[in-house]
Amino acid sequence: MICKEVNSGLDVVKSVKTAVASAHLTKKDKDVGLIYSDIDCLAAAVFTSNKVPAAPVIYDKDLLKKTKYLRAVIVNSGNANACNSNGFEAINTITKELSKKLNIKQQEIFVASTGIIGEDLPYNNIVNSIDELVDSLANGNSENFSRSIMTTDTFEKNAAVECSFLGTRFNIGAVAKGAGMIHPNMATMLSFITTDINIDQNMLSKALRYAVSKSFNRISVDGDMSTNDTVLILSTQEAKNEKIKEDNELYRFFLERLIHICTKLAKEIVKDGEGSTKIVEIVVVGAQTKQDAKSVAENVANSLLVKTAIFGNDPNWGRIVDAIGYSKGHILADKLEVFLGNYKVFSKGKGVNPENKPKIVKYMKNSKELKILIDLDVGIERYNMWFSDLSYDYIKINAEYHT
Amino acid sequence: MICKEVNSGLDVVKSVKTAVASAHLTKKDKDVGLIYSDIDCLAAAVFTSNKVPAAPVIYDKDLLKKTKYLRAVIVNSGNANACNSNGFEAINTITKELSKKLNIKQQEIFVASTGIIGEDLPYNNIVNSIDELVDSLANGNSENFSRSIMTTDTFEKNAAVECSFLGTRFNIGAVAKGAGMIHPNMATMLSFITTDINIDQNMLSKALRYAVSKSFNRISVDGDMSTNDTVLILSTQEAKNEKIKEDNELYRFFLERLIHICTKLAKEIVKDGEGSTKIVEIVVVGAQTKQDAKSVAENVANSLLVKTAIFGNDPNWGRIVDAIGYSKGHILADKLEVFLGNYKVFSKGKGVNPENKPKIVKYMKNSKELKILIDLDVGIERYNMWFSDLSYDYIKINAEYHT
Repeated sequence: MICKEVNSGLDVVKSVKTAVASAHLTKKDKDVGLIYSDIDCLAAAVFTSNKVPAAPVIYDKDLLKKTKYLRAVIVNSGNANACNSNGFEAINTITKELSKKLNIKQQEIFVASTGIIGEDLPYNNIVNSIDELVDSLANGNSENFSRSIMTTDTFEKNAAVECSFLGTRFNIGAVAKGAGMIHPNMATMLSFITTDINIDQNMLSKALRYAVSKSFNRISVDGDMSTNDTVLILSTQEAKNEKIKEDNELYRFFLERLIHICTKLAKEIVKDGEGSTKIVEIVVVGAQTKQDAKSVAENVANSLLVKTAIFGNDPNWGRIVDAIGYSKGHILADKLEVFLGNYKVFSKGKGVNPENKPKIVKYMKNSKELKILIDLDVGIERYNMWFSDLSYDYIKINAEYHT
Repeated sequence: MICKEVNSGLDVVKSVKTAVASAHLTKKDKDVGLIYSDIDCLAAAVFTSNKVPAAPVIYDKDLLKKTKYLRAVIVNSGNANACNSNGFEAINTITKELSKKLNIKQQEIFVASTGIIGEDLPYNNIVNSIDELVDSLANGNSENFSRSIMTTDTFEKNAAVECSFLGTRFNIGAVAKGAGMIHPNMATMLSFITTDINIDQNMLSKALRYAVSKSFNRISVDGDMSTNDTVLILSTQEAKNEKIKEDNELYRFFLERLIHICTKLAKEIVKDGEGSTKIVEIVVVGAQTKQDAKSVAENVANSLLVKTAIFGNDPNWGRIVDAIGYSKGHILADKLEVFLGNYKVFSKGKGVNPENKPKIVKYMKNSKELKILIDLDVGIERYNMWFSDLSYDYIKINAEYHT
């Protein structure tokens, strides 16, 4: 049972090809991407819980009720295809034209969009890019694909593992885009995952939901959730393993690897959060309920005062305690302990070890990934998540990213 | 039945005196303030719901269980007297010394603190300022008092009205401090209100709770709630009205004026929010429940993307719709309407009237107070609140306000 990370993305599954093209939706060179599989792919997806979902989300949810198998995914950046007047007309036209060119069924095509909300999608631009897309499909393009779906992201996000379980090999590859508006429940992020493991639809869907709940749903950049968030997994089923139909040892091995990949990408999204200079893992332990632990973690992760203190390398644990204090659930100030890295800063109602302050400032300045540990000491439940700090550049990017 | 705003504060009630002094807790000239009444004041207060309350909050809550009447309030800025090791020792020493000097009972003194969390209060500094405080007590000092309790506030906040009801005169005066960490549930704000109306404790308390729920609890600067928030009302009972013991016409008249004063100060707190350049009133109507309306208002008011778009004068209603979409409650995209000022920008699932964009940008640039109206169109409940935009200066103030 070994698994090694490899320098790849969706390409790690050999039947999967990708391509990029320019649809002139952005100032980027390439702003539309295509994933295509030579063979049928079993599919499962998790979508945003936003009540004003974009057209692609509504379309894809409906699509996956009608079919289990997909052959292609077309994604554009620059326009979210949300809250506009031509969303479904756009999707129908694009998928119809693409299906002809690929010689597959229209309902074998999944769609995704990211970018500005509320503007009509100039879908003829995308239709016009289809020839370029299809003609350039190749295995080995995943990095370009991941770049084509970026919006305010500053670097592309790819991850892949090659695994072996009792002699049977399988692979998992993935790409993601994120940046602003990242929050628990997967705000404004897209991720596409490929694998070749042989698994039934029920278990694939279960694995994806669990992996997302442990990774993409535990990150926060600015507390917003978008209209477009989507995580899709596709399996070519080519691996030689006995088909996974239940929660067995191979399933758990696969699941662990899937969580690993998703967590890696989720953390890269936080790292690349708009204006982010640091990533922080917050771990809450000793809670009476999981929900209490989550409430504390989310309040600290979303506190602007905590985020700015971290940007300023200021060990201002008062702001952390303040955010814990307005969380839901059972919290007793007299039990509470807070650690910054390995330094205990708050214990049982008051600040402790002020002499460590210079060391903590040094730790904050020198660490790329900080850790905050909160022990509520009233139970045994825990929760962890990742968040970014808040810098001048966040304001710059978001005040100046005009409609 | 008339009421006029007058250029005063706590002083509008003639038996009330204030004083300020320097306790060297901050770089400010004066950082400790005293309110004193020549006669007994009926008292009622509302406190933070933070589960890690500061020592003064714990002390005052207990105090008001023991007594209905107060004579003095001592307030310091620069140190929150929260999460430290000498909180109660500090309060006991200060109130003991102050009671001696004022020749009143120790339990007739209310305390409040605002500033950094987690540091011991150098209370001897405050004790040493008591002579200066008491010796300089005067009616006419309210503006200086309001300045002494400021932290990152940039201007002092006073309000007062002189009222006449069927020939009986009464007054209400108030001061407040706020700036950062303002959020529904009164985060990091202090307000002290004086009146001379003749009212029983039950109705005074009821009026204060209602007025706070309509004003201080409806403002948001950055979503945080502090350990120290306190609103205190004191009545000298000197007015010649028949004592208010029930919800009668005079009570409602008084209540309306109290709401007016509290709302004025609450809006000034938002206006003075750290780095704030604009104040926005958000009004949600047509909700199925009050709770739904509140959830929508709070999500929009706390969305960093909305706040930065407003700072950038960008009519990016997509971010507003996005924040509505992740609110709790019954929301139908096909019913939803959104207005920026008088301009309808979103109607029944999509953006409308794009030709108005230049006018809306002009409106955003030129208005000191913006209005966002959201009609969920699924019921009759409503909620309103005020929030500020998010600027570079917010980051500057909070990343550089070091412990």
